[in-house]
Amino acid sequence: MRALILSGGDAPSRAALDAARPGWRDADLVIGADSGARHAAGLGLPLHRVVGDFDSLSAAEVAAFAAAGAVIERHPVDKDATDTELALIAALDAGATQISILATWGLRADHALGTATLLTHPRLAAAGATAELLDAASRIRLLQGDAVLRLELAPGTIVSLIPWGGDAVVSASGLQWPLVQETLRAGASRGISNVSVEPTVEIQLHRGALLVADGGVE
Amino acid sequence: MRALILSGGDAPSRAALDAARPGWRDADLVIGADSGARHAAGLGLPLHRVVGDFDSLSAAEVAAFAAAGAVIERHPVDKDATDTELALIAALDAGATQISILATWGLRADHALGTATLLTHPRLAAAGATAELLDAASRIRLLQGDAVLRLELAPGTIVSLIPWGGDAVVSASGLQWPLVQETLRAGASRGISNVSVEPTVEIQLHRGALLVADGGVE
Repeated sequence: MRALILSGGDAPSRAALDAARPGWRDADLVIGADSGARHAAGLGLPLHRVVGDFDSLSAAEVAAFAAAGAVIERHPVDKDATDTELALIAALDAGATQISILATWGLRADHALGTATLLTHPRLAAAGATAELLDAASRIRLLQGDAVLRLELAPGTIVSLIPWGGDAVVSASGLQWPLVQETLRAGASRGISNVSVEPTVEIQLHRGALLVADGGVE
Repeated sequence: MRALILSGGDAPSRAALDAARPGWRDADLVIGADSGARHAAGLGLPLHRVVGDFDSLSAAEVAAFAAAGAVIERHPVDKDATDTELALIAALDAGATQISILATWGLRADHALGTATLLTHPRLAAAGATAELLDAASRIRLLQGDAVLRLELAPGTIVSLIPWGGDAVVSASGLQWPLVQETLRAGASRGISNVSVEPTVEIQLHRGALLVADGGVE
């Protein structure tokens, strides 16, 4: 089951998503994380649930979302999680196994980085679920441990491999600069801006954790 | 010695930086990372050096920077590092011990996350140097291992603590929600949007790695 979470950053454009990410709107569940719920209308999405403390939504907005059929899940302001983490947990509780988070970027850098680290949320691994940060220009996923990711990409697509939290040992094929059991050092940018040259790119992580971003052309 | 690196994302506004970060422009060295060099004029900064493959600067722009006195450091296009990493290395080679990276956000998400991971660059630790991501709304630093950070902040300032690459054990005082040897779990957002309540905030990392962001008010 696939869920879309609308976070509180800048919304990507619907037209750009349609062009870059066909099928992006195929979801069984759309959750607005507090003010992120405002993005649903512009993206042409239904809004099934709104989660948060609603400190950045007016009472009238919350009432309008409820009147339109959304389930309202209100948390105390002094809560221990961001609205986006609460939305992630709500998606997992509803049975989602694929979760795309939109509108991560553009508001507060601490929130954006916090949302990026949600990809390592222990509930995801416990549920066998995957999450990604999605916008028109990039889709960002996390590989951990011993894992393989196959991507079907138009040749010429940027593929960035970013070691996360430590060194990562990686093999990758179908790229302009292939890797064979190479160590990407934490804090080094060597894996950024690789480019696909085959229709299928295969990324194998042997050790560590690795962010994989695909999308856009140089 | 303090260096400013101008990365290739969106430039913060000079007025907003002046208001939020007095002293931000006190630097001995200003380095433009490729197209980031364009930000110098708008920020009222001298430009001492331009580093990169110049695939996003015109030959005329590079010539103009050189004519204005900047040292031009040209790397091959097929290089193993982003322009921002090359600028970081140039700053360290010049003896910088405090490095602020501006214009991290707003262009490509993979670049922004790659720049964030530069805070863990092995050359920084080897040089005993510190780096931060700086914009008007937030200043983001990384603590690793057993470390203490004292911040002088106007009460009411947002302070976010984000475990990085794994769990972090943290004590923090001067905050609305103080922490005493508490474990912040990787992927959980509990440490985001704490708020300073004393003029001095002290953050002590006992184990792991922790991003500390300060700036802005709720």
